[in-house]
Amino acid sequence: MSNSFGTLFRITTFGESHGPGIGVVIDGCPAGLAVEVADIQAALDRRRPGQSDLTTPRKEADQVEVLSGLFQGYTTGTPIGLFIRNQDQASHDYSHIEHAYRPSHADYTYDQKYGRRDYRGGGRSSARETAARVAAGAVAHKLLAHYGIRVSSYVAQVGAVQVPVGYQELDLSLIESNPVRCPHPETAERMAELIRQTRDRQDTVGGIVAGVVQGVPAGLGEPVFDRLHAELGRAMLSINAVKGFEYGSGFGGTLLFGSEHNDTFYTDEQGQVRTRTNHSGGIQGGISNGQDIYFRVAFKPVATILQPQATINDQGEEIMLAGRGRHDPCVLPRAVPIVDAMTTLVLADMLLRARANKVD
Amino acid sequence: MSNSFGTLFRITTFGESHGPGIGVVIDGCPAGLAVEVADIQAALDRRRPGQSDLTTPRKEADQVEVLSGLFQGYTTGTPIGLFIRNQDQASHDYSHIEHAYRPSHADYTYDQKYGRRDYRGGGRSSARETAARVAAGAVAHKLLAHYGIRVSSYVAQVGAVQVPVGYQELDLSLIESNPVRCPHPETAERMAELIRQTRDRQDTVGGIVAGVVQGVPAGLGEPVFDRLHAELGRAMLSINAVKGFEYGSGFGGTLLFGSEHNDTFYTDEQGQVRTRTNHSGGIQGGISNGQDIYFRVAFKPVATILQPQATINDQGEEIMLAGRGRHDPCVLPRAVPIVDAMTTLVLADMLLRARANKVD
Amino acid sequence: MSNSFGTLFRITTFGESHGPGIGVVIDGCPAGLAVEVADIQAALDRRRPGQSDLTTPRKEADQVEVLSGLFQGYTTGTPIGLFIRNQDQASHDYSHIEHAYRPSHADYTYDQKYGRRDYRGGGRSSARETAARVAAGAVAHKLLAHYGIRVSSYVAQVGAVQVPVGYQELDLSLIESNPVRCPHPETAERMAELIRQTRDRQDTVGGIVAGVVQGVPAGLGEPVFDRLHAELGRAMLSINAVKGFEYGSGFGGTLLFGSEHNDTFYTDEQGQVRTRTNHSGGIQGGISNGQDIYFRVAFKPVATILQPQATINDQGEEIMLAGRGRHDPCVLPRAVPIVDAMTTLVLADMLLRARANKVD
Amino acid sequence: MSNSFGTLFRITTFGESHGPGIGVVIDGCPAGLAVEVADIQAALDRRRPGQSDLTTPRKEADQVEVLSGLFQGYTTGTPIGLFIRNQDQASHDYSHIEHAYRPSHADYTYDQKYGRRDYRGGGRSSARETAARVAAGAVAHKLLAHYGIRVSSYVAQVGAVQVPVGYQELDLSLIESNPVRCPHPETAERMAELIRQTRDRQDTVGGIVAGVVQGVPAGLGEPVFDRLHAELGRAMLSINAVKGFEYGSGFGGTLLFGSEHNDTFYTDEQGQVRTRTNHSGGIQGGISNGQDIYFRVAFKPVATILQPQATINDQGEEIMLAGRGRHDPCVLPRAVPIVDAMTTLVLADMLLRARANKVD
Repeated sequence: MSNSFGTLFRITTFGESHGPGIGVVIDGCPAGLAVEVADIQAALDRRRPGQSDLTTPRKEADQVEVLSGLFQGYTTGTPIGLFIRNQDQASHDYSHIEHAYRPSHADYTYDQKYGRRDYRGGGRSSARETAARVAAGAVAHKLLAHYGIRVSSYVAQVGAVQVPVGYQELDLSLIESNPVRCPHPETAERMAELIRQTRDRQDTVGGIVAGVVQGVPAGLGEPVFDRLHAELGRAMLSINAVKGFEYGSGFGGTLLFGSEHNDTFYTDEQGQVRTRTNHSGGIQGGISNGQDIYFRVAFKPVATILQPQATINDQGEEIMLAGRGRHDPCVLPRAVPIVDAMTTLVLADMLLRARANKVD
Repeated sequence: MSNSFGTLFRITTFGESHGPGIGVVIDGCPAGLAVEVADIQAALDRRRPGQSDLTTPRKEADQVEVLSGLFQGYTTGTPIGLFIRNQDQASHDYSHIEHAYRPSHADYTYDQKYGRRDYRGGGRSSARETAARVAAGAVAHKLLAHYGIRVSSYVAQVGAVQVPVGYQELDLSLIESNPVRCPHPETAERMAELIRQTRDRQDTVGGIVAGVVQGVPAGLGEPVFDRLHAELGRAMLSINAVKGFEYGSGFGGTLLFGSEHNDTFYTDEQGQVRTRTNHSGGIQGGISNGQDIYFRVAFKPVATILQPQATINDQGEEIMLAGRGRHDPCVLPRAVPIVDAMTTLVLADMLLRARANKVD
Repeated sequence: MSNSFGTLFRITTFGESHGPGIGVVIDGCPAGLAVEVADIQAALDRRRPGQSDLTTPRKEADQVEVLSGLFQGYTTGTPIGLFIRNQDQASHDYSHIEHAYRPSHADYTYDQKYGRRDYRGGGRSSARETAARVAAGAVAHKLLAHYGIRVSSYVAQVGAVQVPVGYQELDLSLIESNPVRCPHPETAERMAELIRQTRDRQDTVGGIVAGVVQGVPAGLGEPVFDRLHAELGRAMLSINAVKGFEYGSGFGGTLLFGSEHNDTFYTDEQGQVRTRTNHSGGIQGGISNGQDIYFRVAFKPVATILQPQATINDQGEEIMLAGRGRHDPCVLPRAVPIVDAMTTLVLADMLLRARANKVD
Repeated sequence: MSNSFGTLFRITTFGESHGPGIGVVIDGCPAGLAVEVADIQAALDRRRPGQSDLTTPRKEADQVEVLSGLFQGYTTGTPIGLFIRNQDQASHDYSHIEHAYRPSHADYTYDQKYGRRDYRGGGRSSARETAARVAAGAVAHKLLAHYGIRVSSYVAQVGAVQVPVGYQELDLSLIESNPVRCPHPETAERMAELIRQTRDRQDTVGGIVAGVVQGVPAGLGEPVFDRLHAELGRAMLSINAVKGFEYGSGFGGTLLFGSEHNDTFYTDEQGQVRTRTNHSGGIQGGISNGQDIYFRVAFKPVATILQPQATINDQGEEIMLAGRGRHDPCVLPRAVPIVDAMTTLVLADMLLRARANKVD
């Protein structure tokens, strides 16, 4: 197990989906940031179930309690403990999966690794764990905002339905204007339709979240291993259901020649160094160059489907299994705040680490 | 700077492309592995320049010296120091790039971050640094081999030319049968042709390396953050010129429905748990499930091209700049041993970390 | 701030003395250990205030709540969250120290470092934080017990009153037989008398805790930096009020010649390798040698005294200040479970790390 | 094995006493420090054998080679590789210790831990490894000097001969005025005499090194675990032959009452906050308070003595063994630059870490 993320701005999450709750300790947040509980709650409200007919109808209030680290409305430099108590944790019957290995879930691998597991609702492997990340991201967001850095993510693709233009041509303020969290309204409507159809077929569908970071100063990222994009990629790949990460030109860039792909530098009217294209996605040699950072994250379709599937139990015997209860037909809309949070956490850490680059 | 990788099997690399040399310290390699210098040299020989007409004609012997950690042919548990001395380090003239910011290189970002840089041949940001990783990977390979784990990578795409079948239908023993390191001979020939054409046009081309790991026991990977695929992704994204990473179904998996994507379990004739498909790429919940691990890594076209390009100098003034010397028109063939090395390093680390999962 | 301790068996503590409570997350505890809440509570009961007339009469129940990581009475390999809610947190008036810098406390240094602090009862710098360590130590204790390792600490000195014999001549089962936690009953009585006299004079007194670890296998410790005694020393020095650490012959060993100090090896009747003396304190070259580990920890007198003292406020103005409320005249009796806990945590971590020493 | 030290200013050492050499990689040194090879060589010259008749007559030139990280006389922010090649590494016969376990050495524990060891001259457990630390310390010293921090260590005790006054009454510029490195000339002479007598008796003698750090700003140290004194203690305890560490009042402080021990604050004529006494040793709550830091380090007598001693071989059979060759009768004079180096490394790391305390 490794439940910590970050070097200087470091979080440690804990908790299972059906234990007492989900929590996080943030160690290394600088003193002097104004943080309200309401800021954290607002971030959690973006992630919680039951926001629209596109997500699971489960009702979870996800009320955060601050256990430590804030005093008189400010961070004090001490560790910030946050806890979100689970509700109705004991009310469900999970006996049908106690001995079953659900396809494309972590039941089998947890049993192999640890010899036992909390089988209720996925336990530690449940995406509910990401609530802790979102709560921590809300604190990290305060640090980024203090330095003028803005993080935005949006749904760029659901199944085969994709936003037809790049992020530069979108109005990112529209992300929250629809339940899909896609700032291209017509596409959002088609995505919503696909999600509803998929839900009605008792199936699930995947897609892509795009991330954009603006206002990043040049100089963030710690090569050769902790390159900014390597940390972003690792952060995204640590989110449940993520299967791929690309930044800048990404996989598509493999089809370009060097003469097409290179981002040529120029100096703009304000005397600011800029590049004419941004295939680099704002990162060169693993270090931010001051241009917008952008990347894309692939999410597989949710593994829990209500249709019966063939699988085995922990004795190796073949059984049939169907999901029960209320699940998301598409994780993308609720993935947006999680991508935001992880992006924010990476940048907060890199911002603090960059302070050690050179002597004053 | 962060030049260490791994938690228990941990490497620290150092060195610049035109300083005295490139080195690595491996800390945490278990005692008792038989390692010969020739093993390390053989790995370096796969990466070194000048192997064929598809790579840079630069001649570098890349002779490794063992500085510590081996005694009487075995690892002793102490740190293993390896050093590859640069040759002719002082013989070239780099004055044309001393003050220039090469497009899509790290010159500008290093200057912004550190206030100064070793401008000779890219200095620390040169891909020459990966020689150290390849040397370390050769040691990690001994650990994996001891436990029956086999790592293979190959060139799956160059520009738009791609291998038309999945890895299961390839004979991976053919990887070294051609200078492209593509185990599909006809495609390899077409790739070679594209690389030669590109070189003759003074341009460069990118592509995709596929990685396959066989013989992995179930149970490797440390969720929730150090998921096996997250560490693999981070490792790949730390390689120069990499723009994307996907595992299992990857970005393509976003087009499938859950009912198509889920890997159903069964028990084979030997009583072994297996899955009928492997969209999971051998990893579920961030932990290996015993099936083959596979992933794909996108490399952009090499940034150094011999054509003149517009850029700026460190005073912000626009200049024209053309690459000089001998460079790779396509990095893919030489990237294969680097992908192998990083994969090997991740698995060696995870193998050691998994020893702490449960009480005996 | 750095609130994590350990590499594989890793704890992160959080919480302030007068905030909502004190907590800890244990990350890396292996799966399969039987742990009851009562085990953790029993450890906390040894540390809590109000146990005898020798400690502070403050009443704190220190009830632990398990937030995660235990399922059906066993560890699951997931992070174990523990929380001890503070009582009456808002009931006291701390305005007299809001702007005062108490002598030999951390008020001034926290203000200098962070620019602000939670001034209520010391906030994060309060020894109340060690409750979290004791709770975590109770879990680590289960791991050590599984492997037959026994940790004991006792009060060896209070002021100038010291136990006249070495640990080998003591019956360590008597540690809990008196409120001082000194297994030499006559000395314990004299220590108790000194503590009562000191309390009545509104003063405080320091002393020494001795630690003994028995049943340790040879091979624990990770040189060259994480030597077993270096980690023990660091652990002890991280406890509030600790001013020194020595192991084996310690400072006294500087008075011996090499011919007197060396521990000669022999093989006992059971064929076990042993040493005739144990000036090494069970550790050679930073690695346990199978003999008993022993060490000593110096605690200064508690800084909070009820007598008025000269000091300054945060404007630099001289003021007079006297402690208020109920404080320990001597921290030693309550320090014993904290030394036990930190010893246990170090050994649990080293036990897991040693699994990576050599190939099977 | 754990051969790295430090979080942001991080060193990794490698090498055995009779392998090719001893080296270190410094990762995280900020760019922009002027460093000459001669600076590093001068530090090594203080540590090397053969400086006077008080130390081993072995001649080792200990010439350092810079492998990376310096360019045009400045640090570049990239890892600094340093290597000190061993001389005559193959010329000696170590067959007498190949199978013997020398008393109070690490032969037995290395064999137990790793199953094999480089037995030539102690291999990795040799104090020769500290040459790498001294080299790294010379670089860290540049960072400290840039910020006005001064580190001094001196021999305070040899056997029972001790400096009769505190560091405040000494002229620390006299440390290098005699081969003992004791700034109290009369005591130095008596120490030298004791060392010569001990050498002539084929015995060895231990002692105490005192460390002093001046010019430290308030605010260094990262509680609750990485307290400044805990990191100093860990650093000292990682040095070969160290048995104890105390800071400020140390073990002696256990004899004082709180009313005697507390350091009362006042504001001096310059408006600077100061304490009237410094029992805190410049550190309160684990954070520097701006007063002088001071501490003491206990070194045992060197384990290698030329007299025959009883011990066992690796078959458990009793044998007699006498040291051969040229060894130090007293390690204290040569320990001073090592204590300096480790102190310097701790402070450099803490200086960089403190940059993340608060928002600008």
